Amino acid sequence: MPDIPGYRFADPTLPAAPLSLEELAELRGTLLLDDDDIEALRASGPILEPHIEELLDVWYGFVGNTPHLLYYFSNAAGQPQPEYLARVRARFGQWVRDTARAQFDEVWLAWQIEIGRRHHTIGKNRTDHADAAPIIHFRHLVALTIPVVMTMRPFLERGAESAPRVDAMHRAWLKAVLLTAILWSYPYVERGAF
Amino acid sequence: MPDIPGYRFADPTLPAAPLSLEELAELRGTLLLDDDDIEALRASGPILEPHIEELLDVWYGFVGNTPHLLYYFSNAAGQPQPEYLARVRARFGQWVRDTARAQFDEVWLAWQIEIGRRHHTIGKNRTDHADAAPIIHFRHLVALTIPVVMTMRPFLERGAESAPRVDAMHRAWLKAVLLTAILWSYPYVERGAF
Repeated sequence: MPDIPGYRFADPTLPAAPLSLEELAELRGTLLLDDDDIEALRASGPILEPHIEELLDVWYGFVGNTPHLLYYFSNAAGQPQPEYLARVRARFGQWVRDTARAQFDEVWLAWQIEIGRRHHTIGKNRTDHADAAPIIHFRHLVALTIPVVMTMRPFLERGAESAPRVDAMHRAWLKAVLLTAILWSYPYVERGAF
Repeated sequence: MPDIPGYRFADPTLPAAPLSLEELAELRGTLLLDDDDIEALRASGPILEPHIEELLDVWYGFVGNTPHLLYYFSNAAGQPQPEYLARVRARFGQWVRDTARAQFDEVWLAWQIEIGRRHHTIGKNRTDHADAAPIIHFRHLVALTIPVVMTMRPFLERGAESAPRVDAMHRAWLKAVLLTAILWSYPYVERGAF
């Protein structure tokens, strides 16, 4: 496991995921996330790897230039918290690697739900001892799927061998990012409605 | 207003939306849903209009062939409810027209939240006097964004004047469908977390 502060992928002390592997398979079915997408995600890993810092620069640039999003990384006085932003950034880069690995099993599932808790009041700021807004609102958590996926395309274009391959990888990332956004929403949704 | 059973767009007796126009503008900002997307959505309307029944056939084919989704339109004995499916279908077609019109104002917003309630236990089945599953689970409600958007592409290709125009319209639809899925999720999310 990479040595990243607060990174707990495969930590056996995390609570088990509230979704079964059968339910995850159904969810992948609704998302049309099939074996071709898994292959495309895995093929995208080595393409993205040398550019992950640059990709994070684009995402952080977007958040930093969007006041209603920077708010979530700022304290009550409206000051952005640089240490918090830096710690989240390291895990965000690792999330790219973990998503490209596309081993969507119980271990991965439990970690996605933990990431969800860290966006919600029940877990936000805690891991990083931060003093920022108490929750990232659900609506923006899910909506961020779009800028994340849109900014990936130029990076995929640098390495994929053809335009149809770029399309296939980009489509796979759209499905995978929406899948993680749905799972991160778990703590936000009322009991029984998820 | 079209005469469609249960269609209540612009019904002044609907509850006002819990989201302000300023918050909607911020949400559009996170989704990168800009004026070019609005233009592309509106341009897609006349392209899609002659094919809406065919588009609905594709979507209904997908749901009908996916047991864990057909479940939501079936009674406790597992029997699909054809009258319920037919009534929802007429409103689904109208939702395509309303989304392509892209007048994202208070009236539209109030109707999206009402559509959300009809997927959730607080409103499901009621409008159509149906006897189907009591809720469409949040995870599938949001995940259905993908098959809805993916199946639109061939229809856009029939009418758009160039490949870049198809891409622009398809991207606009992705953002707009995710926007509606987020708004439809409102009744599912705990108070204050939306």
